Amino acid sequence: MHQLVLLRHGESVWNQENRFTGWTDVPLSDRGLEEAHAAGRLLRARGFHFDLAFSSVQKRAIKTLWSVLEELDCMYIPVQSTWRLNERHYGALQGLNKAQTAARYGEAQVQRWRRAYDEPPPALAAGDPRHEAGDPRYRGLGADVPRTECLRDTVARVLPCWRDAIAPALRGGQRVIVAAHGNSLRALIKLLDGVSDEAIAEVNLPTGQPLVYELDADLRPLRHHYLGDAAAIEASLRAVAAQGRVAA
Amino acid sequence: MHQLVLLRHGESVWNQENRFTGWTDVPLSDRGLEEAHAAGRLLRARGFHFDLAFSSVQKRAIKTLWSVLEELDCMYIPVQSTWRLNERHYGALQGLNKAQTAARYGEAQVQRWRRAYDEPPPALAAGDPRHEAGDPRYRGLGADVPRTECLRDTVARVLPCWRDAIAPALRGGQRVIVAAHGNSLRALIKLLDGVSDEAIAEVNLPTGQPLVYELDADLRPLRHHYLGDAAAIEASLRAVAAQGRVAA
Repeated sequence: MHQLVLLRHGESVWNQENRFTGWTDVPLSDRGLEEAHAAGRLLRARGFHFDLAFSSVQKRAIKTLWSVLEELDCMYIPVQSTWRLNERHYGALQGLNKAQTAARYGEAQVQRWRRAYDEPPPALAAGDPRHEAGDPRYRGLGADVPRTECLRDTVARVLPCWRDAIAPALRGGQRVIVAAHGNSLRALIKLLDGVSDEAIAEVNLPTGQPLVYELDADLRPLRHHYLGDAAAIEASLRAVAAQGRVAA
Repeated sequence: MHQLVLLRHGESVWNQENRFTGWTDVPLSDRGLEEAHAAGRLLRARGFHFDLAFSSVQKRAIKTLWSVLEELDCMYIPVQSTWRLNERHYGALQGLNKAQTAARYGEAQVQRWRRAYDEPPPALAAGDPRHEAGDPRYRGLGADVPRTECLRDTVARVLPCWRDAIAPALRGGQRVIVAAHGNSLRALIKLLDGVSDEAIAEVNLPTGQPLVYELDADLRPLRHHYLGDAAAIEASLRAVAAQGRVAA
């Protein structure tokens, strides 16, 4: 049997400001940093150990991971940071206030951009300074740095990371933790559990709550559960669900 | 031309207590953490960027590196942590107070253990709980987890890291930073500059001070310099030199 722990990063400063983030590289808030350390302490208290860690190349996920590794006293394990685990690209919405965007486009439209499997937000225009094309961490992507993504796009680029990096490590007996984002983790869960394009809209992950997957020898999920207590998870999910509203 | 930055970790809690550390995995002190961030800010102010980082598997070096990468806003670059960059193993002296050890064995003996190229401190006995044989990070070493080391031993195990990992990365055009320890960095400098077995005794590195090597196409050093101001480097070197004395 194999074990995989998924962890959505804690609150970022743009979560606090209720702005669409996507690939924008904003740091954790103080509260988000505390969530990350609390996740690490929880994993330590339950006796978890890891041999290998994955994260996106975004600092809110990396800092979450580093905080966990500090609490677990295993800062020395290999960390693979890859753009494939980045948050879904939010296109021209990146940086906009969620409530203002809802007031302008309507809550229903914003909800579709947030949750519909196939409907990407408006794309960033060529030359938009928000586009990450010039960022050295995406040099290898060349002209393929996304201008927007729907969840289908995110699933497509998370898949090679699962297939070529995470799954082989698990098969090799390594205990793996993945620190990433709401949508890249939804993508991973869709792949793991075979969730349908429709049903994935209803899957939400609380921030800073370790989600433990137990997998069989063929990496089929046997069961999964959150480590934290139900009240904390419920509160976190309510906060996430409220973000798209006109008045949060 | 290639560029390599070496950085000795900031003060650890055992530096503060004036104890021999070696492979014991002690954290940075608050002051050491501040030294690390200051090094990162200095590198940022001078426009340094890195594509790849190396550290030991000891938390005082890793935390120093992470602090620098945070200040440089490049937490996403690959980090290779290897036991080959660990501090020199200090054998049966690990954990002992330096001044008390000097009082017992004499300052001259302690100075030889600290600086003689070929004279290891007394080895840890089989079964000594201080021996790191059971530590998962050294699993791959099997029975070869050292019980003590002289600097010659440290040079021998740093060499493959230079030859097989750091040097090829530099030749490939990557800008590299190495965050490590007083003796593993002295070993690296001995290899880089071809310092004699005798002369290396006089080479001391200040903590938390980025040391910049410029190398030619064949990785021969052209020149090197500290980024920090002379007074800070002098003060740090004096503190390091005083540690072996009976009264520090």
